[in-house]
Amino acid sequence: MKKRVVLALGGNALQKNGEATAEAQKKIAISVGQKIAELANKYEIVVAHGNGPQVGNILIHEESAATEKAPAMPLETAVAMSQGQIGYWLTQAINNAFAKKGQTKKIATVISQVIVDRNDPAFKNPTKPIGQFYNEKQAKALAKENGWTVKEDAGRGWRRVVASPKPIDIVEKKTIVELLNDNVIVIAAGGGGIPVVRTKILKRLKGIDAVIDKDYAAEKLAELVKADIFVSVTAVPNVYINYGTPDQASIEKTTTKEIEHLKKYGYFKAGSMLPKVEAAVKFAKYKSGNTGIITDIDHLSEALNGKAGTIVEK
Amino acid sequence: MKKRVVLALGGNALQKNGEATAEAQKKIAISVGQKIAELANKYEIVVAHGNGPQVGNILIHEESAATEKAPAMPLETAVAMSQGQIGYWLTQAINNAFAKKGQTKKIATVISQVIVDRNDPAFKNPTKPIGQFYNEKQAKALAKENGWTVKEDAGRGWRRVVASPKPIDIVEKKTIVELLNDNVIVIAAGGGGIPVVRTKILKRLKGIDAVIDKDYAAEKLAELVKADIFVSVTAVPNVYINYGTPDQASIEKTTTKEIEHLKKYGYFKAGSMLPKVEAAVKFAKYKSGNTGIITDIDHLSEALNGKAGTIVEK
Repeated sequence: MKKRVVLALGGNALQKNGEATAEAQKKIAISVGQKIAELANKYEIVVAHGNGPQVGNILIHEESAATEKAPAMPLETAVAMSQGQIGYWLTQAINNAFAKKGQTKKIATVISQVIVDRNDPAFKNPTKPIGQFYNEKQAKALAKENGWTVKEDAGRGWRRVVASPKPIDIVEKKTIVELLNDNVIVIAAGGGGIPVVRTKILKRLKGIDAVIDKDYAAEKLAELVKADIFVSVTAVPNVYINYGTPDQASIEKTTTKEIEHLKKYGYFKAGSMLPKVEAAVKFAKYKSGNTGIITDIDHLSEALNGKAGTIVEK
Repeated sequence: MKKRVVLALGGNALQKNGEATAEAQKKIAISVGQKIAELANKYEIVVAHGNGPQVGNILIHEESAATEKAPAMPLETAVAMSQGQIGYWLTQAINNAFAKKGQTKKIATVISQVIVDRNDPAFKNPTKPIGQFYNEKQAKALAKENGWTVKEDAGRGWRRVVASPKPIDIVEKKTIVELLNDNVIVIAAGGGGIPVVRTKILKRLKGIDAVIDKDYAAEKLAELVKADIFVSVTAVPNVYINYGTPDQASIEKTTTKEIEHLKKYGYFKAGSMLPKVEAAVKFAKYKSGNTGIITDIDHLSEALNGKAGTIVEK
């Protein structure tokens, strides 16, 4: 039986040197698609990609060109749009990697809603900057008009900030399991998922403007689809301590206990390695036999064989 | 066994009186979702929606706010974005219609690529206006820069025009069948699908800027998933002859032969009822026992029971 793998693909994985045209991003998708197709004989695969630069550009376009007749879409809908966009590029790239081998394969991008808790403390302290820069006056007017929180961003101007709540469930989880059972490569929970809350009365879903960390969302998806392996695919082959210093040391096979010890000593930075380490640890702890991996796309295949990357086991 | 139904939902079905905010469109999606949920006990359902006004606004935003750092997405990618956007709204609306009844149901929006023929005569004569208006000078400069065809649009200014080729296959057809077999309501081929061609060498998929008619795409999908019924859901309960005149007469149960006879006499207008009639006829002829229906959302349930709408059988 094939092992089930959830890959969390880095948000910047489709943009190199800031080249943001569809053409440039599709070119990178081709090489990513190639790597994923190579794994399909051995693994059942779900790809959960990031969307940072893409949803950023969508919001910039939506907001700066909004008119009464063509109003701007809110963040939650913009996330759905970026799932369609990136999902299409990845689907086509994987299709073409199989076509190159004279094969066909079922691949599906599933638009995914990820449930968060309205009482998540993150909503009390929004920290994630999104969309375009404004001057102070504009920013404060928009905040008043739209109920936004705005903050000054490192001397570069003012931006809207939104909450980054934890994912607690994924609406499409059962469909994703069916697809995996049917031998389909699934692209899901893109950009951390469309953030939704469940209303108390009638349990209705309702979109909410927030940004869910894609590593946390992908890890949650890995739990829900009963994956065997969760991989955070990032820009470097391993997690390191003292990265970029003469004392740099890579972490290879490790235990949840060992890497949590390093975490406690502040070796991993928030907004960088920390969420990836936390997601890998959470997954390794979730179920006996689970493996959490952090590596780059070039070492992905070897890492899945236990021969590269940072491998976290219980 | 449940009958399998493909619904082609009108492009303007989510916008009333031109109200284009996410909030306004979601509100309409709620009532559409309600109607679809009511059918789920009796039918396997695929929803193929239009995207005219939505992709139009995406293109306006993308093109008028494009910068070097945040370049505009091309039409084919914009279609993918609109599939994410509208698919999300519909998925959530159907989810909530079930939640209202205390039920859950699997619903999936599948990003869909629809194959067209690079040699389709439509590419020699692009007619479908898209995106924003320009003055003549701007339009001609853009045409030269991007290889666009531009045309003067009824005195309102210049616009890009693209081809509207016929759909010949749907890349995700097998996945959509698996989902229907797994009891999932599927939203697919949104906006007529992302137009792609297959390259001769290596059979690779490649996006192409075009607009596929959503009734033709939905009908093709209905053939491919072996549906029993194809419904073009439009703004009126029936197809009429002499619509809006004292001689107006509604067409109820009819045969492909009879309605094709009326078509030959020019009773149905291109860009209005003609593609719907053609799609319903094509589907009714495709396989013995097939039914093609044209009606509005309020008569959908009755029409499926043979008691309303224009019903075309072989």
